[in-house]
Formats: sequence, structure tokens, C-alpha cells
Amino acid sequence: MKRRNAIGLGTAGIAAAGAGFAAGRFWPATSEAAALDPNAEAIAFYGAHQAGILTPAQDRLHFAAFEVITADRDELIALLQAWTVAAARMCGGDYAGPGGAAGGDYYAPPDDTGEAQGLPASGLTLTIGFGPTLFTDADGVDRFGIADRLPEALRELPPFALDALDPAVSGGDLCVQACANDPQVAVHAIRNLARIGFGTVSQRWSQLGFGRTSSTSTAQSTPRNLMGFKDGTANLKAEDGDLLEKHLWVGADDGADWLTGGSYLVTRRIRMRVETWDRTTLAEQEEIFGRDKSEGAPLGATGEFDEPDFEAEADGVPVIAAKAHIRLAHPTMNGDARMLRRGYSFVDGSDNLGRLDAGLFFIAYQRDPEAGFIPVQRSLSENDVLNEYIEHTSSAIFACPPGVRDEDDWWGRALFT
Amino acid sequence: MKRRNAIGLGTAGIAAAGAGFAAGRFWPATSEAAALDPNAEAIAFYGAHQAGILTPAQDRLHFAAFEVITADRDELIALLQAWTVAAARMCGGDYAGPGGAAGGDYYAPPDDTGEAQGLPASGLTLTIGFGPTLFTDADGVDRFGIADRLPEALRELPPFALDALDPAVSGGDLCVQACANDPQVAVHAIRNLARIGFGTVSQRWSQLGFGRTSSTSTAQSTPRNLMGFKDGTANLKAEDGDLLEKHLWVGADDGADWLTGGSYLVTRRIRMRVETWDRTTLAEQEEIFGRDKSEGAPLGATGEFDEPDFEAEADGVPVIAAKAHIRLAHPTMNGDARMLRRGYSFVDGSDNLGRLDAGLFFIAYQRDPEAGFIPVQRSLSENDVLNEYIEHTSSAIFACPPGVRDEDDWWGRALFT
Repeated sequence: MKRRNAIGLGTAGIAAAGAGFAAGRFWPATSEAAALDPNAEAIAFYGAHQAGILTPAQDRLHFAAFEVITADRDELIALLQAWTVAAARMCGGDYAGPGGAAGGDYYAPPDDTGEAQGLPASGLTLTIGFGPTLFTDADGVDRFGIADRLPEALRELPPFALDALDPAVSGGDLCVQACANDPQVAVHAIRNLARIGFGTVSQRWSQLGFGRTSSTSTAQSTPRNLMGFKDGTANLKAEDGDLLEKHLWVGADDGADWLTGGSYLVTRRIRMRVETWDRTTLAEQEEIFGRDKSEGAPLGATGEFDEPDFEAEADGVPVIAAKAHIRLAHPTMNGDARMLRRGYSFVDGSDNLGRLDAGLFFIAYQRDPEAGFIPVQRSLSENDVLNEYIEHTSSAIFACPPGVRDEDDWWGRALFT
Repeated sequence: MKRRNAIGLGTAGIAAAGAGFAAGRFWPATSEAAALDPNAEAIAFYGAHQAGILTPAQDRLHFAAFEVITADRDELIALLQAWTVAAARMCGGDYAGPGGAAGGDYYAPPDDTGEAQGLPASGLTLTIGFGPTLFTDADGVDRFGIADRLPEALRELPPFALDALDPAVSGGDLCVQACANDPQVAVHAIRNLARIGFGTVSQRWSQLGFGRTSSTSTAQSTPRNLMGFKDGTANLKAEDGDLLEKHLWVGADDGADWLTGGSYLVTRRIRMRVETWDRTTLAEQEEIFGRDKSEGAPLGATGEFDEPDFEAEADGVPVIAAKAHIRLAHPTMNGDARMLRRGYSFVDGSDNLGRLDAGLFFIAYQRDPEAGFIPVQRSLSENDVLNEYIEHTSSAIFACPPGVRDEDDWWGRALFT
């Protein structure tokens, strides 16, 4: 039963369906158009790796971090199993549960919250991650008997210069990244997982992102961030072959067998002081990024994907400034550190000084944070002129297990068995 | 010069453009697809009425309320004129200013913030409104010499039962409603108006909406709110002919000549306790709304647009409960009160109890709030069982002037001349 071509199983529902079809408006016209739209299609849920990492970055994000509020290992396992079933259904364009939004027991809460009825799968992916506190909580307690399976690399991130982190919107025992081409579908998925988890997990924080800022496939164009620039054009992409084994996926020899084929996820909520940025000159903006604003080309080059020439000088001055963002963030300047980035722009209203609370919700996947995010952020936090215009307000790290192989598998099975 | 088929005027930009086109990736692939997409088209900015009211409701919203921080009438007028020019440009798919994002003076801040470069008009509409405090400020001062032009109907809304309003995110001297089918385009527009207004206005609050909850044309399907229901199907729509003169547009005899052809705008941020709602039975949900959840039909009827039968009984009990939302909100129960609604769902992260900060940003246009929103909300606030699941956290009222006639006209000209 899919949300788009069937409704609830109850007889009232079937009668209503008949009447609706006769009237010619049972399904929203937008769904008809969506059927022809590649953005409406379903992404495969099962596979060796979780979807939502290499999947061509969808347009919209709802990211949620949860705390596990039980200390019962079996309850946690049952939740992960129930979540896996619901996630597979929703990624296929179906309701969260078999009763649908309005077709199950009339005198029970529905199996689905209903706001996605009539909407297609919309490229939904759901990607789970486990935070360090799932293994050992803040008091050092091994609640779930998995402390000895904590990977060496899954450590709280070190402090960085200029960090302005709010602990209330950082960290988490579990996370789920919902990406979709329709924000209602992403919101619906997170909400239904939270509903299923009631009594077992509590949402710690969540973040909406309205527009992707990264490409994860060479078939996608590089979008612009809220500073108006293309950034991260040297991002790892799905087509990068062997580089993905080297930089993205955890290997069998990396010291955490249950995580083989998974990846480490780092999130950072980066507030941008856009009002200040908007009052700087184009010259300064381009010098700070080390790119021209219109094309996105490294300064001194002509195309976005041209290799930056960090040696080039004009009149004895480096064409790309010593502290330009493109230079500080470049793999060649950070021991070949590379990540797969799939961040999103956000606007969370305005602050009490009349400024937009806007910026980039940074998301990066990597084989080892010590060889990925950490050295790059250390370099950026200490040197990047861009720091005058940005502020990191949230931070989290998670280990994302490998993909769910089939209907008998579930999120985290290898960790708990 | 449009954002999609031209870039900055500077020679560096032209050189980059040439190189970019040669490389075959100067314009993002998504823009090419967008050119075939009706959601990408431009909406006419000039007309007898402002666009963004009867315009078929676009998918995404960025709404901003501003305070005027000057007491200089000429500065305010200059801002309104500058805003009108920029708004007309952006609604046409162009940069906010003639220099574009990267083509003006290299040693000056750009004329446009740049994040919409490469994006089509995307159905952008920008709709301005004037709040009561623009006419007489909180201290009773007539800052701009327009106190005597305050319409009788532009009064602060009365308090309603159960109001839980946060003054910091309520009210405002000015508002701009940006609706578009691409959220980046809506955000870009508000941000550039705020940029142009720097020193004259300050943002008081703003709200993003990720998905429309209303239809303003019979050509659109009724979307679902975050309670999973279709609501407001009896909404005024663009095709309603004479009803629009009666219920939507301010008439020449309504006591404010400058506002003829305009409309009063009421906004309410309505938080929904979705977690609690999701644990109620389908039976209770349908009884509260007075509709079946799947089809959206009034209880006892079969189609969404069937007239509700408020007299029908079954086994001596009303089929539509005495306090059902559909009954309390219906025009026939409120002296034929009718509004044009174009609200949006929002999720602003999570609260500190682990609940989604989610709900409906209610937007309604009407000829007279005393004959529209006020009686309906009085009835709902005192009787609606839905109040157990919702909370009004923000409120504002604005008078939206008539449309801008042509390039010599500007937002609010009739008020100031």
C-alpha cells in the first residue's frame, strides 16, 4: 500500500475513495505531476551502505538527534528494529505502518500521522548514526552492554578555536538524517520515527535545512551557500571509486568490525553573520574565499573545477591569499584530508538584534574524523578570515553503521549481536 | 539582466562567463530543467492588487516583520521606493540591483547577495503590509505624519481566550510576505530587502514555512496540515468573483481611500502539540475536525468539497459534533465571515522537552478583520476542542496597500502623497 495510490483499509475509506475518484479530485493534481518528476522517485533503502550518504544530495533536510531514555537493552533493540521497518516503508513512499493514516483501528491512534498522504517518496533517505554517549553515558555507565564496542575514532570532537557551541543543541545518543526533495516528506519521516520511539527516545534537537549546499555526484551542479559562493567543489562524490574506500567508508581493519562499510558523521551548525557579510566589498569576499563569486572558479583560473594554483603570484602577491578559505580547506594543505559533504542552508527566523538566524548546517561523512574533519577544522578555526563572519553553534559526531541488507536485517544489528 | 542568463557586467565576469559556457557547466543543470517547469515562472509584479494574495499559493514562505528605526518621513519614503524597485526586479527573476551579485563595483558591496544566481523567478511574490505602529508608535508619536490616515479597522487584535503570545515575535511596523516555489528564492528576497533597508528598518521577527496548507485557486489541490488533515476547503479562492469584492478587497467606501484595492492581513503562529495529537485515536481526531481524515470530506458526506450538513444526526447524536472545528469555523456560523487563507506549515527545531516546535503559520487576508478573523477566532478560542492541541504564540495585523500600477508607482504611494 503506497501513500499515492491507495488509502486506508477501512470500509469508510474505500467508500470515500470511490466517491473521490468519481469526482476526479481524489489525488492532488500535484501528485500526478510528481509521477513524471525524477525528484519524486524512491531511493533504494537496502544495500551495503546506508542511503543518504552517496545518494545525490536531495534538496531538503530534517536532521534529528535523540536521547535514549530507557536503560533496557532489549527496548533499544526493539526500537531499532521497529525504526528500520518504518524507515524502509517510508523511503518506499509508503505509510510508516501497515494501517496507514486513516485505515487502521478507528479507536486507536493511526499508524501514520497522515501529512504525507498523497505525496510520493520524493527521494527520501533516512540515515542513522550512533553517538559516543550511546556506548557510555555522561556518568560513565554502560547502559546497553556495548561500551567495549566503542570505536576508537568515535570520540567527542576536540575543542576548536572560536567554538561557540550550545550544548543543548549538540551531541546525541542517536541521530537520523532525513533528506528528501519535498520538505513535508522529510518532516513526516522524522516525526513518525519520534512517534514510534515515544517512551524509548526523546528528541534532543533537530534542524531543518531548506536548500542543499553540496553536490555528492558529478551529475549535480554545485549550489550556492548563503554567502553567495560555490564552496566545496572538491567534495568527494559518488563517482570517485577507490577514493571512497580510502576516505569515506570504514574498512574491515579499522578496529570496529560492526562498523565496516559505515562512516563517521560530523555535524556543525554554522551561523553566518549575513548582514555583516553583505556589507563587505566584492573584492574582500573573493579574497576571503579565494574564488570568483560568479563562476566559482579559483582565483586565477576560469572554471569552477579548475585546480587552484596556490603558487601563482601577481605583482609579488599570491593570487590566492595565504589565508583564503579555498587554500586552508584544500586536501593538499591538510594531509590529503577529504570528506563527503552534504550540508544545507538554514534560516531559523531572526535574533533579538534583528539579524537573520541563518547559515550552514554542515554535514560531513568520512572514514576517520582524525584524518578528515578534525585537521581541516583545526586549520580553519585558527586561520580562516571567514571566521569574522561565522560562528559554530552546534556540534555532534556519530558512527553510521553499514546499510541494511534485507528485510531480516536492521539498523545496528552487527553492534548488538 | 536576469539571474539565469546573464552575469555581472564587469569584464572579469564576462571573461569568466565565456570560459564557463565553453566548459558547458556555467549554468547549473537544475536551471535548465526549471525552464520547463511552471513552478519556475515569474508572477507579474504590477497590477491593481498586490500579487501574493490571490496568486495560487506557492510552496514555500519567508515572512518578515520590520521595525522602522528612523523618524524621518523622507527616509521611509525613499526606502519604500527602493524596495519597490528591488521587489519588481526580483519577482522578475532578476538581481536585487543593477550591478548583480558580482558585476558591479569590485571595491563595493555587491548589489545582490548572490545566493539566487542561476535560479529562476520560481513564482516569487513579495507583498507588503503596514502595521498600526507605523501610524502611531508605542508612545503615541506620529513619526511620519500619517496618524490621521490610520484606518479604523487597523487596530491591534483583541485578546482571545488561551492566547500565549510572545510580544518579541508579534506585531511590526512593516511586513513583507515572500512566497516562492524555491525557498532559496524567498529567503534571498527577504534578505536583500533587509540589506537595502539597513539603517532605516530592522527585522523584528521572521518565519519560514516549508509547505503551503491552503489553496487559493480551484486549480490547486488542498494540502494537508501537520495534523494530517485537509482544512479550510471553504477558503476564498481566486475564482470567487464578486465574493472577493465583498470579503477580500477594501472598497472605496470603507473609510481609508489610500487602501482601496488593498486588504487586511492577519498572521498567527499556531504551535501544534503534534506528539500529543499523534497519540489520540482516529475517531477522536475526526470528531474534533468534523472531517474524515483520508478524503477530507465533512463527516456524513463523501467528497472534500461537499457542503457539511450541520443538522444531520445519527442515533440522536449530531454527525458533526457541536464543537467540531469545521462547524465553529464555518462562514454560516460566523455571520458569513470569510477570509482568504494562505498559511504554511513550519518546524523550528525542537523545544527543551524533546517536542517538535512545529505548527501552522496562519495567514489570512480580508476586507475587514471585524467581519473576518476576529469573530471566527473568538468562536474558536472559546469553543474549539482543537485548543487542547494548539497554542497561538505570535500575532500581527497589517494593512496591505493596493498593487503597484507601473514603474512610476511604489509601495504605499497613496498613503504618503
